[in-house]
Amino acid sequence: MTILGLLAGALTTGCWLPQLLRSWRTRSARDISWTYLGILGLGVTLWLSYGLLTNEITIILANGATISAIITLAGLKALFDREARETT
Amino acid sequence: MTILGLLAGALTTGCWLPQLLRSWRTRSARDISWTYLGILGLGVTLWLSYGLLTNEITIILANGATISAIITLAGLKALFDREARETT
Repeated sequence: MTILGLLAGALTTGCWLPQLLRSWRTRSARDISWTYLGILGLGVTLWLSYGLLTNEITIILANGATISAIITLAGLKALFDREARETT
Repeated sequence: MTILGLLAGALTTGCWLPQLLRSWRTRSARDISWTYLGILGLGVTLWLSYGLLTNEITIILANGATISAIITLAGLKALFDREARETT
């Protein structure tokens, strides 16, 4: 069961890598909603708390790593959105 | 604890609504990576299985609803990506 959870967590965390790479390559993340990122970030933080309180290592690991990915993407989006505004 | 899980699940599921609305309004989802959506969809499916096997209602509800949102966004992206190709 833990293996299944770890695999699930590896996928829902790992999926952010191709998204970060795509945003970096295209220097554009305008199609990604700020509200989406904000609510998702808050939700993932609560999942992390849930994992810590229930002592579920799979949930702790998956959500801890996902938070870093979301913060990175938010940073890229802020940068590229500003670049887009400045060039138009 | 279940309340915390349900709240976390409501956020990580509900965050898809503003993303779907944004993609619908702008008729564009090119900045969202196909690889991201594919791996995320597979991961969320595994989380659903994990929830079913461990009988965790919060994980079952959150991931079941998230799968529908991801499928909807993938459908919108396929449509809008094709529209964009046809107009250029």
